[in-house]
Order: sequence, then C-alpha cells, then structure tokens
Amino acid sequence: MGSSKDDVQASSTAAVSSIREMRIAFQGEVGAFSEEAVEALFPGGEPVPYPTFEEVFEASTKGVVDRAVIPIENSLFGSVHVNYDLLRTHDLCIVGELQLRIRHNLLAPPGAKLADLRIVHSHPQAIGQCQSFLKEELAHAEVTPAYDTAGAAKMIAEHGRLDEAAIASERAAATYGLEILASGIESNHQNYTRFLALSRAPELPEARSTSTRKDWKTSIVFSMRQNVPGALFKSLAVFALRDLDLFKIESRPLVGSPGNYIFYIDAEGALNDEPMERAIEHLGEIAAELKVLGSYPRGRTVD
Amino acid sequence: MGSSKDDVQASSTAAVSSIREMRIAFQGEVGAFSEEAVEALFPGGEPVPYPTFEEVFEASTKGVVDRAVIPIENSLFGSVHVNYDLLRTHDLCIVGELQLRIRHNLLAPPGAKLADLRIVHSHPQAIGQCQSFLKEELAHAEVTPAYDTAGAAKMIAEHGRLDEAAIASERAAATYGLEILASGIESNHQNYTRFLALSRAPELPEARSTSTRKDWKTSIVFSMRQNVPGALFKSLAVFALRDLDLFKIESRPLVGSPGNYIFYIDAEGALNDEPMERAIEHLGEIAAELKVLGSYPRGRTVD
Repeated sequence: MGSSKDDVQASSTAAVSSIREMRIAFQGEVGAFSEEAVEALFPGGEPVPYPTFEEVFEASTKGVVDRAVIPIENSLFGSVHVNYDLLRTHDLCIVGELQLRIRHNLLAPPGAKLADLRIVHSHPQAIGQCQSFLKEELAHAEVTPAYDTAGAAKMIAEHGRLDEAAIASERAAATYGLEILASGIESNHQNYTRFLALSRAPELPEARSTSTRKDWKTSIVFSMRQNVPGALFKSLAVFALRDLDLFKIESRPLVGSPGNYIFYIDAEGALNDEPMERAIEHLGEIAAELKVLGSYPRGRTVD
Repeated sequence: MGSSKDDVQASSTAAVSSIREMRIAFQGEVGAFSEEAVEALFPGGEPVPYPTFEEVFEASTKGVVDRAVIPIENSLFGSVHVNYDLLRTHDLCIVGELQLRIRHNLLAPPGAKLADLRIVHSHPQAIGQCQSFLKEELAHAEVTPAYDTAGAAKMIAEHGRLDEAAIASERAAATYGLEILASGIESNHQNYTRFLALSRAPELPEARSTSTRKDWKTSIVFSMRQNVPGALFKSLAVFALRDLDLFKIESRPLVGSPGNYIFYIDAEGALNDEPMERAIEHLGEIAAELKVLGSYPRGRTVD
C-alpha cells in the first residue's frame, strides 16, 4: 500500500497532464473571480464563461465542457443554496476545492486620477463592501450599480473616459487594460469565496490508508425522516463514533414542509476509505434522502 | 405555575399594548421587504429606515429606536453572516422571528402595458430570480440593475413613463402608486427570508413549564477550543442528552484561522427553562467563546 502523499500526488499529476486540453465552465464575464478560481484549480486549462449557473451545470453534464468551477459559500454571505440544489439535481462529482480571497480594487483607464473621477460602477455587493472607501475617498463621485464587477470593468474600458472607474478584481484590470488606482479597498478583508471543481466522473485516491484520510474530504447532502427525535445528533454520531472529523455542517429548512431539513456535511476522509464507507452506509439507515457529492483533496487558500 | 400558553400570551399582550408607540429600525428603502417584516412583527409600530445594517444596530443599541428587524437567512442565498457578526458585537437580544415569502412582481405606472415596456429596473438578485419570466415575456425590454427593489419602484414612479417597469414587492406598488402587471414572477417560489426582531432587553416566558419548551427557541453562537476531536459532536450532545431538539445548526469557518469555526445553533426551549439553562452551562465548559443571542417564541410564516 503506497503512502497517502504519493497517492494524492499521483492523482494530481495524472490530472495535470491533460489540463491544457481541458475546457472549464464558469459563471460570469471574463475577468470574474470565478475565472480566477478556474485558473488556480486548472492552470493552463481554457475557462469558458456562461451567463447562469444552470447553463454551467447543463454544459458540464452534457460534456460540452470537461470540468466546471462554481462558488459554494462566501465567508460574509453564506452558502450558495442554489448551487447545492443544482448539485442535488445533476450527476456531477466534486473533485476539488479552493478558497479565494475576494479583493476589490478601484480601476480606471490609464491616465485617470482619483480626484477627477465622477462615476464609479460595480456590482451592488462590491459597492456595499467598499462603502467606507467610497465615502472617504470618492464622496464627490456618483456610484452606479452594474450586473457584475468584471462587466463594469469591461464597460469603462470601452468608454475610455478619465472620469469613470469600476470596482473589480486585479484580473479584470489586466483583462481590460485598466490601471489600479487603489487596491484592497473593501472594509472587511475576511472576504473569501470557496469554489468547487466539478467533473462527470469521481476522482478518488488509489490506496486505502489512514494518512490519506487527513488529506481528503467527502461532501454529503441528506435529509432525515420526519419526527425522529435527536435525528441530527444521530446522523452526526455516524461520523463521530468512527473518529471522522467534520469540516462543515449546515441545516437548511425546507420552507414548504415545516420540520423538514436538508443537511450539508463535509467530513474527513475519502469515499473509498473504510470508516467513511461504513459511516455513509450507517447514515443511509437513518436518512430519508442521501446523496454523496464527491471526495476531493483538501483545498488551498489563495490570498 | 401557569400553563405555557397563558405565559406566552401574557408576554405578547404586554408587548402589544405599547407597539403603537414603538419605533422599529430596518435596513432599506420604504417599501422594502424588511418593512413588511416590521409590520408583521410589530403591527401599528412606526418603521424607521436606515441605509445600512450597522446603522440599524447603532440606533437600536443607543435607544434611538425601540426595536430592530433584520434579515438573518434566506432559503436560496443562505445565512446573513454580516448580521450574525453584528449580533456578536452588539448587546441586543433576539425577541421574535418571522418567515416572509419573497414574492416578486412586475410594477409599472398606471396605464402601462406589458407590450410597451422597454426598460425594467430591479436589484440584480431579483432580476436573477425572474430570468425565465423576463426571457419569455419581456425579451424586447432592456434590464437594468438597481440598488434595491423598492428604490427601483420609487424611481419609475417618479419618472412616470409608460415604457418603464420595476421588479419589486406588492408593498412597493402600494407605497409608490404603481400597478401590478404580473405577480409571483420568480422562477423558484420557495424563496423565504427569515427576519429577527431585536430589543435591548430580553423577553422570556414567565413560568418554567415543559409545554413552554415546544413554543420557544433559543439562539446561540459559540466557538470550540482548537484541536478538540469530535468537538462539534460533543457540543451537540449537551442538547441531545437533554432531549432538546435543534432547529438550526451551521458551522462557519473563520478564514483567518484555519481549523477554527463559529457555530450557530437554534435549540428548543427558553433560556429560563431548566434543561436549557443546564445545556448552556454544559456548553460553556467546552466552548472557547459562547454568546446567547436570545430566547423568543417560534415564529410564523407569512406567505
């Protein structure tokens, strides 16, 4: 039995050899944070933008693209339930993850100066996160909402006016030939989005070893039968009693049916690790609905 | 010892008698969904709009207003972590809750017709939720993002043009004298936002009885000491071993410190119910940080 480090590297290396030919779907404009996540997860692959998450899932399921990258939770704004719902209704597997720092910058065409700016465009969420900066440094400018941050950058690049700016990523600046007048202008710097990489086929570590367990995660969605007292506690016991730590647990009420919940769990270990196999079998005994979303190596954080 | 129903009614009645003199802070424009939540939670009270959540918390803490109403989670977009953070850093108590259906409508000045519309304004999230309707019924119109839904309604009412519409609430239509051209135009009708009512002083049921327990909830935020194996399981055991059911559990990673999490829990029972008192004492033995956010009667759903 090989050591876990070798297994993890072997599976990563096998993937890397073909990444250059891969097409990876993401939602948003070129220059969006999701595109940055695509490049960090699949360096050298070809990012393919889609307008909506539904289209990202359709393209991936049909094999129009090889992989997809989607945001699943943000440190300030919570879990992206719509993407959990799409994971539940499509047959795609999570094969990787990444934490990406969402850093906002003030961008303008080359030659523009802070004092001359009259209009600032961005997505309302980005505007909200940069309100202190806008009040202190740009009280003289009008702030206008845009569909997304990269789209705002694209627009001011097309206009080329020296009194227009956009709040967007460093990547958007590079993509559209804009200058960064101020960087990291968000009030709360603890703004990270977790992205998931999706594929049609699972990617599991080759050997079963206890050291692999610490390097892998398995994501599960389940619901409990109604009116089972202490149901959540029992469902967590299937992991705790096997010494499998949890990285995420979240209950989501099903609003149409009071007392019914969906649970999201990320637990330690890969799906072909024996304690995890047993834990999922055990969970199946008490759950009403259960779907394993995939096993993947624990991801890195990109600051 | 009085019965729980009487206790709950007594505390509600005491509150109702003074609601008419109450000023209740909310974030957003007049006509926003938060204002609707204010009226459902405090009928007859005076809703007071503030531009940001920070200002809502400041005004409530300083006693400029009597109560506040904030959104805490949405069935499609997850928990509002920024408001959990404000609850952790301000000394306010949760005293009530409400589930409000977020229903989107197409609004226009009186006399406007669907076929004549050329521009539709709304918040990007509302636009996203109504994309199917916009594609099928308004493919000929330009869609423009706005800061918030009520603000978009206010603007088209001021313009008074027959080719401009807004996507907003029924309340916004009434507030700004607009007609509803189409109602419930969102694709996913399972869109509910949970609002919390906040006060400077706690409001607890008067008697300690087991029947009160089922009617009340207590919300708690805590973090665990690092590197305690099965820490989350142990913390849930303090409730499960006392037969206190959980209505919500959510882990939130603290991005700056890997392996550290904050947990949100809503458990059955009021803070002065003995098993809950004991459970919180027990949790205090194993938690690194613990804050009780308040006890309140289980809220209703407004469809």
